[in-house]
Amino acid sequence: MAELSKKYALLIVDLINDFDFPRGDLLAANTTEICPSIVRLKTFCKQQQIPVIYVNDHYSLWKADLNTIIGHAINNRSEPIIQQIKPESDDYFLIKPKHSGFYGTALNTLLRQLDVDSVIITGIAGNICVFFTANDAYMREYTIYVPEDAIASETVKDNHYALEMMRTVLKADTRKVDQFIEEY
Amino acid sequence: MAELSKKYALLIVDLINDFDFPRGDLLAANTTEICPSIVRLKTFCKQQQIPVIYVNDHYSLWKADLNTIIGHAINNRSEPIIQQIKPESDDYFLIKPKHSGFYGTALNTLLRQLDVDSVIITGIAGNICVFFTANDAYMREYTIYVPEDAIASETVKDNHYALEMMRTVLKADTRKVDQFIEEY
Amino acid sequence: MAELSKKYALLIVDLINDFDFPRGDLLAANTTEICPSIVRLKTFCKQQQIPVIYVNDHYSLWKADLNTIIGHAINNRSEPIIQQIKPESDDYFLIKPKHSGFYGTALNTLLRQLDVDSVIITGIAGNICVFFTANDAYMREYTIYVPEDAIASETVKDNHYALEMMRTVLKADTRKVDQFIEEY
Amino acid sequence: MAELSKKYALLIVDLINDFDFPRGDLLAANTTEICPSIVRLKTFCKQQQIPVIYVNDHYSLWKADLNTIIGHAINNRSEPIIQQIKPESDDYFLIKPKHSGFYGTALNTLLRQLDVDSVIITGIAGNICVFFTANDAYMREYTIYVPEDAIASETVKDNHYALEMMRTVLKADTRKVDQFIEEY
Repeated sequence: MAELSKKYALLIVDLINDFDFPRGDLLAANTTEICPSIVRLKTFCKQQQIPVIYVNDHYSLWKADLNTIIGHAINNRSEPIIQQIKPESDDYFLIKPKHSGFYGTALNTLLRQLDVDSVIITGIAGNICVFFTANDAYMREYTIYVPEDAIASETVKDNHYALEMMRTVLKADTRKVDQFIEEY
Repeated sequence: MAELSKKYALLIVDLINDFDFPRGDLLAANTTEICPSIVRLKTFCKQQQIPVIYVNDHYSLWKADLNTIIGHAINNRSEPIIQQIKPESDDYFLIKPKHSGFYGTALNTLLRQLDVDSVIITGIAGNICVFFTANDAYMREYTIYVPEDAIASETVKDNHYALEMMRTVLKADTRKVDQFIEEY
Repeated sequence: MAELSKKYALLIVDLINDFDFPRGDLLAANTTEICPSIVRLKTFCKQQQIPVIYVNDHYSLWKADLNTIIGHAINNRSEPIIQQIKPESDDYFLIKPKHSGFYGTALNTLLRQLDVDSVIITGIAGNICVFFTANDAYMREYTIYVPEDAIASETVKDNHYALEMMRTVLKADTRKVDQFIEEY
Repeated sequence: MAELSKKYALLIVDLINDFDFPRGDLLAANTTEICPSIVRLKTFCKQQQIPVIYVNDHYSLWKADLNTIIGHAINNRSEPIIQQIKPESDDYFLIKPKHSGFYGTALNTLLRQLDVDSVIITGIAGNICVFFTANDAYMREYTIYVPEDAIASETVKDNHYALEMMRTVLKADTRKVDQFIEEY
């Protein structure tokens, strides 16, 4: 119930992904597993008027153009994931030039305009872009919720390290998606 | 000839514009006058491999989606301008949340990746978004060129003030487009 | 009376100054004239619990060390000014590497921690560091008050241009100090 | 020998520390162990004209004043550490408002002015301020060297996690200080 006093936004990090890099197959497999949780969480957020913000790599296009980016990212490996989770017309969508969703993007300005004080961070890779985004959110004084079943990394160990550091250093809540929904 | 040692990028600020605000008609009229200079400069830059970067308002869409933004901006007043100057497939396109092209955008990261040290700033409004962008470029130690016939403001006086301050404070070059092309 | 709902901070920009640059004598003379207004305003702010924040050049020392900076800046020209306006032990003091008080400094973080929504910007030069600071404050959505008798530039015209642009573009209040105090 | 083509700066993070927080005694004990390595590295850097930059917490003073900060931090627990490692008159010294040395500070501007492309990050805590600083350095495209015997955390496990993530995600070099000096 305490949740109701928080003003959340849902961040979806780098899920429009081509998985075209070394060990991209591992990350794609782990991402496939978390997709249902993220879809469930996104559906819940939209019902609750929690804004949904995609923050995504631009694949060296440096182009704020959703369709071009999806067109670039889609391939046999990524298509099943992108089909489940691609942005809808009323979702926000920002591109980011580096790992953190806050670096070189309008994310902080958007969150302040939406009067958000708590970010739910989901997506990939848990130990890289999700983690960098969480660190930057923490320095900007947002409360952080990273559902442990809504982030994926190349290896289980990588994901575990990142979750552990987010819990201890950033005081992140890491409850699973279903628990969050139930207790909201 | 000294120009050749500079590494330029061309910035086109807020030209995908709906002119839907008080005195928007004045700004649209003044923008119509400078469009040919900007088109000429853009053509020249592309011939010379100078990168072309649009940095544009997102009309509260917070959406990195070129077509949605053009769709939102186009109307009877803006269409003749947008038709002349809209981004081509090999131009960069970034959205900005505030007045400066550097604030909350990937512009600085892109310029550094392109190894640029000098920015050519064009677009509207000369005394607002162009000027804020020029100030931020100056603090980031770029050399600044703002062709006086490639920026427009609502009034001649506004434009004059901005050019005067960019010349004196930012040491901006303000030669006209044709002179720049001739002397390049 | 509406003032009471605003949460102000007083910024004092670059007044610990050596005036050791071309036309520094002109700026020093104009600064001498505004010093009494700033001192009066600072006294009033401290009575009203409005925080006082110095944001100052570091003279290429890159050293967060107030005494070293004052030691560097003090000379025959600057001493009468510095004596009147130097920071007291309960004032905040930040160094800035460039023109804007927000660029590469903790100013925004400090203002947010102090829960400030309105900045009073004073100091020098009105058309350079004061103006850049005001622009950056505006993009960060602070309300801006720049008392016209609390900023100085090298020439009257420079100061006039800057005030004019701050009034029209940044919607800055520019009332004189005494009027602000009276109407608070 | 490849080292010679790199342009380093040495960062010393939060070593002017009061250790006055839960488990501060653990961090103080671990910091005491790494102090000799940092002193040795600092001496070497100064011989090699590698700039030395302290980036330090300001203990809620928000005051760019080295002596005030040292005065605040010094106590029985911290004194032996501060005596060994406090800044000398020709070292740079910046205060930081948050965990990363880049956030709200002039560090990036200083590094660019010094023409640095590689940062040596030392200090405490290894899994918090050192790690956040390393992440931000990585996004700004600096090469990262974090000597494993020049950072300390509250627990060995915390330090180990941070080093592991810096090695794998940030591609950080983590050679010990003596090896770096020998191979330089």
